[in-house]
Amino acid sequence: MAHRFYAPAASQTGLLVRLPDTEGAHLHRVLRLKAGADVRVFDGQGHEFSGTVLTVDRTGVTIETLQPIVPVREPRVAITLAQAVLTGRKFDTVVRDAVMLGVSAVCPLVTAHTDVPDAALHGESARQRWERIAVASAKQSGRAVVPVIGSPISIDRHLSDAAGELNVLLVEPGADPSCSRLDALASRPPPRHATVALGPEGGWSEGELNDARTEGWTLVTLGARTLRADAVPVAAVSLLLYIWGEL
Amino acid sequence: MAHRFYAPAASQTGLLVRLPDTEGAHLHRVLRLKAGADVRVFDGQGHEFSGTVLTVDRTGVTIETLQPIVPVREPRVAITLAQAVLTGRKFDTVVRDAVMLGVSAVCPLVTAHTDVPDAALHGESARQRWERIAVASAKQSGRAVVPVIGSPISIDRHLSDAAGELNVLLVEPGADPSCSRLDALASRPPPRHATVALGPEGGWSEGELNDARTEGWTLVTLGARTLRADAVPVAAVSLLLYIWGEL
Repeated sequence: MAHRFYAPAASQTGLLVRLPDTEGAHLHRVLRLKAGADVRVFDGQGHEFSGTVLTVDRTGVTIETLQPIVPVREPRVAITLAQAVLTGRKFDTVVRDAVMLGVSAVCPLVTAHTDVPDAALHGESARQRWERIAVASAKQSGRAVVPVIGSPISIDRHLSDAAGELNVLLVEPGADPSCSRLDALASRPPPRHATVALGPEGGWSEGELNDARTEGWTLVTLGARTLRADAVPVAAVSLLLYIWGEL
Repeated sequence: MAHRFYAPAASQTGLLVRLPDTEGAHLHRVLRLKAGADVRVFDGQGHEFSGTVLTVDRTGVTIETLQPIVPVREPRVAITLAQAVLTGRKFDTVVRDAVMLGVSAVCPLVTAHTDVPDAALHGESARQRWERIAVASAKQSGRAVVPVIGSPISIDRHLSDAAGELNVLLVEPGADPSCSRLDALASRPPPRHATVALGPEGGWSEGELNDARTEGWTLVTLGARTLRADAVPVAAVSLLLYIWGEL
């Protein structure tokens, strides 16, 4: 299969589009493709085309879009993964896996127990890295959609503002005996848009659990065992996609 | 809650048990507990007890087992995760997550596309590291069972010898158009024991897929998108546990 490149301007056939610098470097320096090579381009919004490399030079790479290609189907439920930023580089893994699984947006959260320096939260470099990872993961997984990576926001604001038809807060085992098991979600019709919020290594605070209940969030737990914080998104998103008929 | 330690000899109340060296060092040097401290011990076979530290000295740590404690419930389905060894240290992550999720055994596989040096496969150091990780993950996740980590075996042998009531081979998207979706498993009663085999980064070979069919394995896929090889076990085991009523 032809190599795929992210070209945000590739919205229709018959266009000449320039690849972003990092994509151009990948085509030119890593894969060593030349003018005339057959490729595919996708715009990150769900459009994908066959294309031909027209020029490769020091000013960049241009590609002509040819035939539309039916991209990998997106899940019918748009899932926003709202994940508390994790320590070290673990949020990188979260973004990678979530994009590969098919979420439509990732929203980094700052919570009471978030233990990450301000620079890592609000610096442009973290955000840009996460966006690069989202593009790379879309390329690898065959998606023509690049999910939106939000700026980190506080859980307080997120709990009151989240616009999902269904807002789910995943609770660690034992934190709240009244919360539902995941299969409670299976008895309702799939929503068109859902938000699932996952806590940091230290879990949610009492106040956050109370606020979520007050704001009408659905609290669910994955059962009795504790998982690594950066493995939880994979489990949670897989399970929601399965419950909603997407796996 | 009292700290938990792995003590393979702690099979009943009223015993004096010596901690393995690494567990003793954790108690003594990391947590700085002393004689008289209240702890918990579990034997890795599903038994757990409250206990008291009796002696801490250069010859090691001894603990007296007191009252039995009802451990975290194990899944009713014993799942063997048969995972092709992955590159780098990714199999470490696989062992960690699988133990936390509740599998009862991990079986490292060597397949046609396994791209790992022999030393990493068959050296004692890798095996010992995986066993240490299994103990650490059982401690963290509250399990009183430490899953068995097998020696690496060839997929050929595994396909013919696997003794699960249900043997599932997870197939990457597109590799086999005839394979089932995961929900095909949901229509059957949960098995008592199941094996799920997952391939390496490079996927299964044609011969392996054919052999699996011939040996009566059930081939299933997780849908259209590609996941990172070390995220697949988390997704697959979570989904099986959910399907079998364990999450």
